[in-house]
Amino acid sequence: MSEEIQKHLYDAFEHAKPYCSQGRVADYIPALAEVDPLKFGMAVALPNGEYYCVGDADEPFSIQSVSKVFTLSLALERLGDDLWNSVGREPSGSSFNSIVQLETECGKPRNPLINAGAIVTTDRLIDGRSVEVTTEEILAFMRERSDDATVFIDEDVASSEAATGSRNRSLAHFMSAFSNMRHPVETSLSVYFRQCAIAMSTRQLARAGLHYAFGGTDPISGKSVMSTVNCRNINAVMMGCGHYDNSGEFSTRVGLPGKSGVGGGILTIAPGRAAIAVWSPGLNQAGTSLAGSMALEYFTDALDWSIFA
Amino acid sequence: MSEEIQKHLYDAFEHAKPYCSQGRVADYIPALAEVDPLKFGMAVALPNGEYYCVGDADEPFSIQSVSKVFTLSLALERLGDDLWNSVGREPSGSSFNSIVQLETECGKPRNPLINAGAIVTTDRLIDGRSVEVTTEEILAFMRERSDDATVFIDEDVASSEAATGSRNRSLAHFMSAFSNMRHPVETSLSVYFRQCAIAMSTRQLARAGLHYAFGGTDPISGKSVMSTVNCRNINAVMMGCGHYDNSGEFSTRVGLPGKSGVGGGILTIAPGRAAIAVWSPGLNQAGTSLAGSMALEYFTDALDWSIFA
Amino acid sequence: MSEEIQKHLYDAFEHAKPYCSQGRVADYIPALAEVDPLKFGMAVALPNGEYYCVGDADEPFSIQSVSKVFTLSLALERLGDDLWNSVGREPSGSSFNSIVQLETECGKPRNPLINAGAIVTTDRLIDGRSVEVTTEEILAFMRERSDDATVFIDEDVASSEAATGSRNRSLAHFMSAFSNMRHPVETSLSVYFRQCAIAMSTRQLARAGLHYAFGGTDPISGKSVMSTVNCRNINAVMMGCGHYDNSGEFSTRVGLPGKSGVGGGILTIAPGRAAIAVWSPGLNQAGTSLAGSMALEYFTDALDWSIFA
Amino acid sequence: MSEEIQKHLYDAFEHAKPYCSQGRVADYIPALAEVDPLKFGMAVALPNGEYYCVGDADEPFSIQSVSKVFTLSLALERLGDDLWNSVGREPSGSSFNSIVQLETECGKPRNPLINAGAIVTTDRLIDGRSVEVTTEEILAFMRERSDDATVFIDEDVASSEAATGSRNRSLAHFMSAFSNMRHPVETSLSVYFRQCAIAMSTRQLARAGLHYAFGGTDPISGKSVMSTVNCRNINAVMMGCGHYDNSGEFSTRVGLPGKSGVGGGILTIAPGRAAIAVWSPGLNQAGTSLAGSMALEYFTDALDWSIFA
Repeated sequence: MSEEIQKHLYDAFEHAKPYCSQGRVADYIPALAEVDPLKFGMAVALPNGEYYCVGDADEPFSIQSVSKVFTLSLALERLGDDLWNSVGREPSGSSFNSIVQLETECGKPRNPLINAGAIVTTDRLIDGRSVEVTTEEILAFMRERSDDATVFIDEDVASSEAATGSRNRSLAHFMSAFSNMRHPVETSLSVYFRQCAIAMSTRQLARAGLHYAFGGTDPISGKSVMSTVNCRNINAVMMGCGHYDNSGEFSTRVGLPGKSGVGGGILTIAPGRAAIAVWSPGLNQAGTSLAGSMALEYFTDALDWSIFA
Repeated sequence: MSEEIQKHLYDAFEHAKPYCSQGRVADYIPALAEVDPLKFGMAVALPNGEYYCVGDADEPFSIQSVSKVFTLSLALERLGDDLWNSVGREPSGSSFNSIVQLETECGKPRNPLINAGAIVTTDRLIDGRSVEVTTEEILAFMRERSDDATVFIDEDVASSEAATGSRNRSLAHFMSAFSNMRHPVETSLSVYFRQCAIAMSTRQLARAGLHYAFGGTDPISGKSVMSTVNCRNINAVMMGCGHYDNSGEFSTRVGLPGKSGVGGGILTIAPGRAAIAVWSPGLNQAGTSLAGSMALEYFTDALDWSIFA
Repeated sequence: MSEEIQKHLYDAFEHAKPYCSQGRVADYIPALAEVDPLKFGMAVALPNGEYYCVGDADEPFSIQSVSKVFTLSLALERLGDDLWNSVGREPSGSSFNSIVQLETECGKPRNPLINAGAIVTTDRLIDGRSVEVTTEEILAFMRERSDDATVFIDEDVASSEAATGSRNRSLAHFMSAFSNMRHPVETSLSVYFRQCAIAMSTRQLARAGLHYAFGGTDPISGKSVMSTVNCRNINAVMMGCGHYDNSGEFSTRVGLPGKSGVGGGILTIAPGRAAIAVWSPGLNQAGTSLAGSMALEYFTDALDWSIFA
Repeated sequence: MSEEIQKHLYDAFEHAKPYCSQGRVADYIPALAEVDPLKFGMAVALPNGEYYCVGDADEPFSIQSVSKVFTLSLALERLGDDLWNSVGREPSGSSFNSIVQLETECGKPRNPLINAGAIVTTDRLIDGRSVEVTTEEILAFMRERSDDATVFIDEDVASSEAATGSRNRSLAHFMSAFSNMRHPVETSLSVYFRQCAIAMSTRQLARAGLHYAFGGTDPISGKSVMSTVNCRNINAVMMGCGHYDNSGEFSTRVGLPGKSGVGGGILTIAPGRAAIAVWSPGLNQAGTSLAGSMALEYFTDALDWSIFA
């Protein structure tokens, strides 16, 4: 099996490589715009502690919206199902930063993986604590999950996000108008911009996501990170909503739950098998890594890892 | 295992039974409105040819929108991936009969499981043939898949649907305005209303859906009903879109691909394991069987059949 | 005064003439697509029976949506304020054939000058009568108002409209689904397509609209065509809704109530003064005659006829 | 004439008085919620310097959105037609604080009388100056136009607006994301909240609006306040957009351009004749004074002052 994984990973990488130059790198902040578009890394983390990696798998990148999965995990563990009163778990059918549904649905976002929903999730996670304490909790979680203390928050990226975050401010104030924010908008956004600025490698990201493939328990340390129900819910939400209005396309092509970020990273979960992370900065129209999703489609197809049989 | 399935099926049935009286039976046509709201049946079809059934599992009911999965299968096999040029595979985030997205998206429906998408799928399946020939093909397919020649089209239901089908006519003419219908509206709707009027039991429905759990091949006869890719795609589309704007809720609660109909039926696929059908006419707000989905949640939870690990 | 009108009419015509070649002629039916885009006529009808005309003022053209004003008049006189229960009188903020608001507003169109509203208005005007009788009433009204029996219905245009009317069929069936149609869709559309196919000249059209400038009474014959309240309401609705999502622009530029049609005609009302009709087939993006509206802006500005002082 | 005006004003007041108790007083800030709902005043300002008043015509109230007309005037005079590149002049068909169209129309508000449009108009009026200087200009303008130095800004109201202004902040940040704000959001909102907090009486308000009835020139002082074109445009925009998604209703019932505020005030312009102001805090569903609009309908109907003849 191990050999097979290694072979298909390599093939998937080669298959997708030509697409690296075809995507469009996010350019709304300099820190993302300056990334070399030809960077490309893949990593598979297995429950036995083994890794299979290819390309720039050890280079840290800005995980951006992939962080939403991890703060959702923390918020769900902290608040329980109460969280679902503040944010739904339905696909939105809209783009990542759309505000239209908030108006017709009284300030309750469709799901925690679109921006509005992620902001409200972070707002709940704060739970009366300070920006620093909450940010520290998120960072510590990422370091523990990736088993690597070098994971860090890129404060330059965080500052740039804050400086250009008008759309996210608009979403937050809109939800505030419907009493769906518990802290001042700038407090919650301060944490949110920092979580999006977490930098880590595909190897670290795959490792950090491994427990999602094993019912919420880290198969290496044996530690229960979250309840099985919360783990399933998160996988289901990733499957339905992980790529905004491109979620159906990813779901049919790759056949696994996943979450993308505009930094070009994608975390993908193969339940009972492995966690897979890819990174290639060029994005498709919906903001998902173009070469990354091509590689994942090839890889899961070759291994028959689709959860749809 | 068999005993376990039987036990959990019985428990799920008892657990959900009290909810039968709480849903709201579809009343837009007399044939549906007159159904006894306390009817409740469940059936599990296994690859070895065994069935587990409980309640009114052998009573035929109107499968309504569950039929969309089967006509999608036929259309995909007939037209191949060309079909995806006429209809998407993204969750719509809207109700089953919404027309809003058609206006902003040039008459191309989001997916084949909302009404607009199902109508265009049926229109493509006709492929220049007559209403009779196409209807006959669909009925023959349902009979072959359920291995039971008693499956029938309830012409009274079909006539009622046609008589009250203004909303579907509106959808069809709208797509026609964008040249996304290949046949006269009334031709395609004539087939569509008939496919929705197919009557069969939960036992027959579970049997008919079994190949979706085994990569497109009927595990009993060994016959390849469709390509593995098409099978996976259909399961993915059911997962994301099978319950309209309640798909995320079903997906997180039940953890399996499924398709509901306003007749109260739900077909659910447990990849590699079984097909499960339930029937209880009382619906929740999104038009999915209330007791039916409660029972499915209980059953898949008890057996750990969620595809999210 | 008369000389002034003549002079400014001529100047307006010369001013706008170069724009005739810049608009886009409606091409969804052959009969409209084949019209010479350089045709350009203007006519002013005065209460003393005088006319001032320039260009192709005596050539009949397809008045299309301008007819909506006249059927609204007939429907209002026949049904009274009951009509406003079936159709509103608010600007829609949307294009002429949008269906979005119908979904969120339970099948009640915003106003009688968008397609949906005009179809429901015509449906009410039928009032249980036949297509022929209703069509005859409309035609007789246009002939009487224009004091000219040569006004006619171009049956070729009507047939073409019917053949390509998918969008209008969609609107009608949608309203039917909300019980906001009193007759079969094809019955009401049959009258609607015919009213849109009325052919008349700008001279005839200006004459036909004269009573709207004089509180509902024809200043020449002295006949009361409609109540003053209905007349004011119709002028108000034209002001707010006469040019779909371009109504505000027309209202600020021309300063008078008006109604445009895709045939390139515009009827404009100068309360207490005159009725003005223009015809130039080239349309702007919102479907209003480009040169026609330029000419009207110039003309009313020169004469200080804006009702905004 | 004078006697007639006085009589009809008194009759209109008596006619509408019973409706004072039926409206709903705005309660989103204490300062508005505490106003006596039975307050009711009307004032007519004539070009000869005469006033006709009835009820609480000399009691100051919070003019709120009526202020949008005056800042629009200042912005138009300062920036000329360039302003129309930042904000349209079409009816929106939506409620006063809707954000939906901003998303589909790239951050450009439909018109300057909905909140989004008024905020962007105030932002342009600032034109690089300070909050204090701009606020002072607006206040000075209101005092000069009303010929009364007692007009003031209620700083308590302004503070309350600022404290509860999440929805307006959301609109402003949204436009900022599309580069349609020239100053920091809090700067522009600071002026905006103050302009909405201007307190004046119906007598003062009618006087202040008089120039809109006379082509932009104050008929009493003879001073040209704005160009005739700008004056007409403002009247046209009031006619089409002055009451949000109730503009068509007001326009057909009252037949004059007007602007309402949630404080219960309405300014109405009778071109060539007079300016009329009313105040009654109880609002209809669209946020327009209920008794106020009833009184205006009665008054303009009695005097035949409709601009629709």
